[in-house]
Amino acid sequence: MEKRLQKLINWQREHEIDLCFIQSKENIFYLTNFYSDPHERLMGLFLFKNSEPLFVCPKMEAGQAKEAGWNFDIICYGDHENPWDLIKEDLNKRKLHSIQKVAIEKEITSFSRVESLQQVVNHAEIVSVETILNEHRLIKDENELTSLKQAAELADFGVQVGMEALKNGVTEMEVLAMIEFELKKKGIREMSFSTMVLFGEKSGQPHGNPGLKRLSEGDIVLFDLGVVLDGYCSDITRTFVYKTYNEEQKKIYDTVLQANLAALAASKAGTRIGDLDQIARTIIADAGYGDYFPHRIGHGLGISVHEYPSMSHNNDGRLKEGMVYTIEPGIYIPSIGGVRIEDEVLITSTGFETLTKFSKEFTVVK
Amino acid sequence: MEKRLQKLINWQREHEIDLCFIQSKENIFYLTNFYSDPHERLMGLFLFKNSEPLFVCPKMEAGQAKEAGWNFDIICYGDHENPWDLIKEDLNKRKLHSIQKVAIEKEITSFSRVESLQQVVNHAEIVSVETILNEHRLIKDENELTSLKQAAELADFGVQVGMEALKNGVTEMEVLAMIEFELKKKGIREMSFSTMVLFGEKSGQPHGNPGLKRLSEGDIVLFDLGVVLDGYCSDITRTFVYKTYNEEQKKIYDTVLQANLAALAASKAGTRIGDLDQIARTIIADAGYGDYFPHRIGHGLGISVHEYPSMSHNNDGRLKEGMVYTIEPGIYIPSIGGVRIEDEVLITSTGFETLTKFSKEFTVVK
Repeated sequence: MEKRLQKLINWQREHEIDLCFIQSKENIFYLTNFYSDPHERLMGLFLFKNSEPLFVCPKMEAGQAKEAGWNFDIICYGDHENPWDLIKEDLNKRKLHSIQKVAIEKEITSFSRVESLQQVVNHAEIVSVETILNEHRLIKDENELTSLKQAAELADFGVQVGMEALKNGVTEMEVLAMIEFELKKKGIREMSFSTMVLFGEKSGQPHGNPGLKRLSEGDIVLFDLGVVLDGYCSDITRTFVYKTYNEEQKKIYDTVLQANLAALAASKAGTRIGDLDQIARTIIADAGYGDYFPHRIGHGLGISVHEYPSMSHNNDGRLKEGMVYTIEPGIYIPSIGGVRIEDEVLITSTGFETLTKFSKEFTVVK
Repeated sequence: MEKRLQKLINWQREHEIDLCFIQSKENIFYLTNFYSDPHERLMGLFLFKNSEPLFVCPKMEAGQAKEAGWNFDIICYGDHENPWDLIKEDLNKRKLHSIQKVAIEKEITSFSRVESLQQVVNHAEIVSVETILNEHRLIKDENELTSLKQAAELADFGVQVGMEALKNGVTEMEVLAMIEFELKKKGIREMSFSTMVLFGEKSGQPHGNPGLKRLSEGDIVLFDLGVVLDGYCSDITRTFVYKTYNEEQKKIYDTVLQANLAALAASKAGTRIGDLDQIARTIIADAGYGDYFPHRIGHGLGISVHEYPSMSHNNDGRLKEGMVYTIEPGIYIPSIGGVRIEDEVLITSTGFETLTKFSKEFTVVK
């Protein structure tokens, strides 16, 4: 873990940044190995060019932070205390030269937290630490890949459980409950996002909410789910038809599958990221469904379920070995339903590997 | 719903605020009845003194926003578009006089989002809309109380399921999975926070993580859980002992229960909020456990599981009829374990009512 901290501090020195203030649970986990959600309470990492790192957290989290391996300075505070008073005191003791340039997570740090910070550092210049942390997090190391692969296996397992739970009259929520029950029994505490099980026309809402709708013959069934394992996320979507289907459903499925496979085939180091979206979008448009694919082809995946980069058609970045992201084309037609097929992709030295392995063959669940 | 919007716009006019920009899913739900988590994508409500409200959301959410009852202007955008360009265009068309004062959710809005907003409004003065929204949300109306009561009933039910699932050798995660399975079958899609089931010494961590620890005779068992129902949260903690217990465990339990009951007894309109914490804290300190109650007595509860006000000892506010909050004293001793007893409290015209009804009697689960 200390290697990651050191790498960031090296960047900080190069750019003459007096203070890095990092407060998202994801980046704190990445840099310290301590994962905690302090809700509205402040949890923060303060990095200096030439002074020991400082971790600030609620009193009741301090023990767990140390257990996770935090060996540097720590300030912990009670609910009745203002942590910024303690931080100010600590910074004064460090006899830093004036703090003129501060790097923060601009996209995550709240405006009022920056106001508090600015009072402590007397209105320094604010720059972003996110770009460099996104770059550091982009390429996954061996340990990260091990967790991501295990998390993806459990996502495959979740789809399997869901498919086996399908029967006449079962509700979306009953199937969802069975999926999460089986995963939690395996020790999964958190899904990586709110599990989606949608039947029939409801699958036509890309962000639909599962409810008490009952399954009928001829329904499309869409599963979108993932788990958090050792701090790393998975994310898979599979779509089935139940008992019978019509030609339109089959045509939509085949189009989405073709788009998924084409975007996968283009996945190798050096490819322009935006091309993956364009390749899939062209196939969907050529089949006559251009108006029904309202979202990007995918997103980076790791400690966050949606992380850098955003894989939309105007992304001019290039794929690199060690990147992990999703490919998830979809077609959603309000009166008919929707199909999405989503895989997790790892860029390897020779091309790509999908971490999600569940079959994508058109499947009629009997 | 429009009544809530109108009340806020009235406040805005009184304070000569040219623009309110609201972007948290909780406040958007409160003001529009539309609940959605757009993750990193922008979803925002723009309110003006003398122009129709504007809602901005990702393209794929627009249909659901309208279904939820949004009848005013709407801008929806695709993943390849910058919503701020569209917002700028829309504001220009409105021929507003110059925007000099903007109210935002300072504690939730990210620094970079404020930077984007400032580019559109040409660096206006920023004030907080949170204080007034917290006040509006503080007093719950009849519909909100109906949802909160039903959510609390389901939390009681969750504890019941958990208690019945206890048996030799069962793991924390197995019990957690059974609780959530039964709740999800009833249509609960989301827990209000990560469910906590802790056995033995692990209950001594106020924010401990359930895992594969197995239940043994003599263990303390702590459940902390809640559901989201129709957008409203519940939150209950109950603590049991399994099969046998020792005198220290019983003394800790009795102390926490006494602290819980004393803070409840003081709960009526007009009481200083900080007194609730002090009353409980004094009882715990007098019993010799003063160092082992590291958190505040409770927090407001509603659309958010932790909302205004924070019930710590230095809060000089007063309780008001219609407020809903938690009372949750605890004692945590690393080598022994922890006890927390948490209720949800509603301030009524005559005193208080607990929304959580599960028995608090010292219970040895056999």
